[in-house]
Amino acid sequence: MTAAQTPLADLNACSKADFVAALGNIFEYSPWIAEKAAGARPFAGVVQLFEAMKAAVERAPPELRLALIRAHPDLADKTQRAAGLTAESGAEQNSVGLDRLSDAEYRAFERVNNAYRAKFGFPYIVCVRRHTKESILRDFERRLPNGVTTEVANSIGEICRIAALRLDQLVASGDRLPVHGRLSTHVLDTHSGKPAAGIPVELIELSAFGENRVVTRTLTNHDGRTDQPLIGGRPVPIGDYELRFKVAAYFASKNVPMSDPPFLDSIPLRFSVSEPEGHLHVPLLVTPWSYATYRGS
Amino acid sequence: MTAAQTPLADLNACSKADFVAALGNIFEYSPWIAEKAAGARPFAGVVQLFEAMKAAVERAPPELRLALIRAHPDLADKTQRAAGLTAESGAEQNSVGLDRLSDAEYRAFERVNNAYRAKFGFPYIVCVRRHTKESILRDFERRLPNGVTTEVANSIGEICRIAALRLDQLVASGDRLPVHGRLSTHVLDTHSGKPAAGIPVELIELSAFGENRVVTRTLTNHDGRTDQPLIGGRPVPIGDYELRFKVAAYFASKNVPMSDPPFLDSIPLRFSVSEPEGHLHVPLLVTPWSYATYRGS
Amino acid sequence: MTAAQTPLADLNACSKADFVAALGNIFEYSPWIAEKAAGARPFAGVVQLFEAMKAAVERAPPELRLALIRAHPDLADKTQRAAGLTAESGAEQNSVGLDRLSDAEYRAFERVNNAYRAKFGFPYIVCVRRHTKESILRDFERRLPNGVTTEVANSIGEICRIAALRLDQLVASGDRLPVHGRLSTHVLDTHSGKPAAGIPVELIELSAFGENRVVTRTLTNHDGRTDQPLIGGRPVPIGDYELRFKVAAYFASKNVPMSDPPFLDSIPLRFSVSEPEGHLHVPLLVTPWSYATYRGS
Amino acid sequence: MTAAQTPLADLNACSKADFVAALGNIFEYSPWIAEKAAGARPFAGVVQLFEAMKAAVERAPPELRLALIRAHPDLADKTQRAAGLTAESGAEQNSVGLDRLSDAEYRAFERVNNAYRAKFGFPYIVCVRRHTKESILRDFERRLPNGVTTEVANSIGEICRIAALRLDQLVASGDRLPVHGRLSTHVLDTHSGKPAAGIPVELIELSAFGENRVVTRTLTNHDGRTDQPLIGGRPVPIGDYELRFKVAAYFASKNVPMSDPPFLDSIPLRFSVSEPEGHLHVPLLVTPWSYATYRGS
Repeated sequence: MTAAQTPLADLNACSKADFVAALGNIFEYSPWIAEKAAGARPFAGVVQLFEAMKAAVERAPPELRLALIRAHPDLADKTQRAAGLTAESGAEQNSVGLDRLSDAEYRAFERVNNAYRAKFGFPYIVCVRRHTKESILRDFERRLPNGVTTEVANSIGEICRIAALRLDQLVASGDRLPVHGRLSTHVLDTHSGKPAAGIPVELIELSAFGENRVVTRTLTNHDGRTDQPLIGGRPVPIGDYELRFKVAAYFASKNVPMSDPPFLDSIPLRFSVSEPEGHLHVPLLVTPWSYATYRGS
Repeated sequence: MTAAQTPLADLNACSKADFVAALGNIFEYSPWIAEKAAGARPFAGVVQLFEAMKAAVERAPPELRLALIRAHPDLADKTQRAAGLTAESGAEQNSVGLDRLSDAEYRAFERVNNAYRAKFGFPYIVCVRRHTKESILRDFERRLPNGVTTEVANSIGEICRIAALRLDQLVASGDRLPVHGRLSTHVLDTHSGKPAAGIPVELIELSAFGENRVVTRTLTNHDGRTDQPLIGGRPVPIGDYELRFKVAAYFASKNVPMSDPPFLDSIPLRFSVSEPEGHLHVPLLVTPWSYATYRGS
Repeated sequence: MTAAQTPLADLNACSKADFVAALGNIFEYSPWIAEKAAGARPFAGVVQLFEAMKAAVERAPPELRLALIRAHPDLADKTQRAAGLTAESGAEQNSVGLDRLSDAEYRAFERVNNAYRAKFGFPYIVCVRRHTKESILRDFERRLPNGVTTEVANSIGEICRIAALRLDQLVASGDRLPVHGRLSTHVLDTHSGKPAAGIPVELIELSAFGENRVVTRTLTNHDGRTDQPLIGGRPVPIGDYELRFKVAAYFASKNVPMSDPPFLDSIPLRFSVSEPEGHLHVPLLVTPWSYATYRGS
Repeated sequence: MTAAQTPLADLNACSKADFVAALGNIFEYSPWIAEKAAGARPFAGVVQLFEAMKAAVERAPPELRLALIRAHPDLADKTQRAAGLTAESGAEQNSVGLDRLSDAEYRAFERVNNAYRAKFGFPYIVCVRRHTKESILRDFERRLPNGVTTEVANSIGEICRIAALRLDQLVASGDRLPVHGRLSTHVLDTHSGKPAAGIPVELIELSAFGENRVVTRTLTNHDGRTDQPLIGGRPVPIGDYELRFKVAAYFASKNVPMSDPPFLDSIPLRFSVSEPEGHLHVPLLVTPWSYATYRGS
């Protein structure tokens, strides 16, 4: 439970008004959903609370569901940003870098918003914490040809993903919503048959149309792993990544005979993430002359 | 035997003057070496011919050896280039890109030449066909602290390497000088247990201070190999390289179930070459979820 | 061309009687096939000769084809062995060990022969050089439920395989019949990045119901390969095999630090052969702490 | 804490007599060690208790240390077994199979005992729970050439290892003595990029001079691991092992195209254990056409 979190017990015990005040923005600008859920108290856990809110959305009449969709901002929209997003929407869009787009990127997103809104009459909604800019645009290409019924359903689905992540941050409970993934690595030195300690590791998010971005830089510990997962406690955004390891100094420090320059030094492993809530393990088995990797779990 | 090559038999049979005319520039501006070797005719092969020329250099008095060293041009020197290099020197320097240096690179080479010449009184000589720009500069850093005796020996050594490559190009013989290396790859699809055909392969020469350079682009054949070695029939320049394979379209064409986006698509293998005359084989064993490489032979 | 081989040119030039005398037993006790083929002389190569003999079989009336089938001996039949097989049949059956069966094995083969003959009225025919005892019995289990038409076709198919192998041994020609496979290995020491020389290698044919049999024992050469293929110049019999490598003494001789006892020493690779005419390469990539293998080609 | 264990608090609180009664056989027939340690109560944990007992041994005069050594039985001695070992000694010797030796094995152990006792005047002592029969005999070959001072020290070392294991079984405490190792595996299907569930796994202890012994048979679970470690909660005996996996039915159940017979089915991984208290992980990465293993941790 972090400082900012509200214990579930408090939400179970408080007045309906306080409950709605606390959870009114879990669904963007739509406190009616918290109001509906309030009647189902007490909740045994946050999963049950979320299910109650989701049920309220699903049972709502079509026009209310459409209003919920329309309550969402456009992605990366400068006018709306100036006018004020909810704090939640702002933080979410910033997390994926939508507040610092290049001009070319900004135009790409503007095109997406306009094309989608022109076709469907509501904004293009996606749970941005589960995505990179590339995958947002790729998903758009897939969704644009859909019919309106499909896109209403897709939008509600994305809205529920956004809500689950907000709820996870807001409420402290014994159980957890399954909204977090993990990306991890380890380096096994098969030259000495031991975990490789002290190997520099860098995780890069690759961008097809912008700058690559360093997600994290760290060193392997005595167990050949990193003290923290490379990404953890949040969804692992769908996208393309490169893990970079530096191995020559490590082997040199063990007086391993090597060629000059060393056959291997900087080792890039390039891979894509497709399941933001999954546990993805990308290990490196390495000698000065060979290496292997695989999707582990 | 290529069109431009002279059969060894002809060199064995011709007049001494013709022999010296043919081989006068094997050692830069130093026909006296061919003259010495002429007396040892006939040669059973090009290796024997080369040994005779090398012996002439080794037995020459110190001042002649020094003159041989001084007969060589500075690397990447614009004035000399304008004034005219031997055709051989020009082609060699161009092969490594010394005729198309950026301003920063040009200044780096000028610094090297000047520092070396200031210390030793003769130009910095290196057999450039065995190097990338990076390794030329790296070798310089190593050689500059040496004493003059060592550097005279190193220079003669490099001059003999240059001569061997020139001789190999010029003379057709049943035997060959061991001056060529080979870099090759193959792709084995361990998902289907078969060689992977039709995989795009790209070999990039990596540059620390300039632009990366595509050495070759090709496709794997039905045997998972490339029809031609990635580099062959010449030394493999000392330096850093990246092999890039594209595998997702290959597996998709075989209807292999993959994640979306595919876990693996562009696979970079980064390695360094240290033995220009060696045979280096860098294979890829790959499934949609794993891969391995190693230094093969 | 081995000592015992007849040049194709001789067979093209000789009298029809001599031709039939030379090739009369290519198809068991059936010189009429050579007689038919004699008229198609001269043959450009042994493949063309074989096609002519095969065509004679295929165009023969059903009763003659059945007679050809019936001309074959039972597998491992003691009475027939005493009475005399053709030299060819005897050598073939001996190659797979049918002349030295245990009592249990003998009874198994007798059961097969009797069951098959009782159902179809002709002997169970299989090209034994392409098989181990296990795969002969396994194929029998598959073929016994077939109808007679299928089994006539299967028998003719096996007879043609037998004939092709006999022809390959008998006739010297510029071309070759595609009747030979190859099984090979190599050992790559990924600890030092070099081929592993001097590694003891043993190939064992595994038997489900008899004794395992050592096919060959050898050492890897300086290139990490064996001087001769493990099996070559003949079909690689369908069956189960184990390759055994001894690696601890090799690494110890290079002063590689190892645990005591060494983590790895005797390394068994177990695999099956399914394509007797294929080229199967089973390499070992090994450090003192790891190894990998794959079906190469 | 198992049923038979005594809480450390009870040992801290009880009378000296009860303490000695409880721990009198931790060191074979030598209650004086428990008596010495009793004075150091209370102990914060079992590690501290063990250190106190070990200190009593180390501070004892040479003749008492020798008496401790002589209090131990011969390995596998039939007369002593009939006359009665301590319950502890009996169970330990049985754990490694010393109660069910073949005649040849019995004679081998008798030879060891006699040769050692003849040279040193005391029995050959080894902590048998850390060994296989082979490694007991191998260690004997190493220790026999030693001088008596070294062997007194080695014997005391082994006696302390025996004592630590007995203490670990007898006393329940918040801390643990580091006397247990672990051997584990997992199977990763790199054909599908997922853990391989339902793979039959067999662990065999290999014997050079007796029968191989199945240590455990199990199946991989949904995570590709085994529900229990292959060996855990005890030392992993020094010796040679083979892990056997059956993979063909697994891949067939997923409709993976394979050769007939499958290239891979029964996969043996042969390795040795050298650190009984270590954590040894021996994974299998496998497709129908390739596999790899390594010493993990």
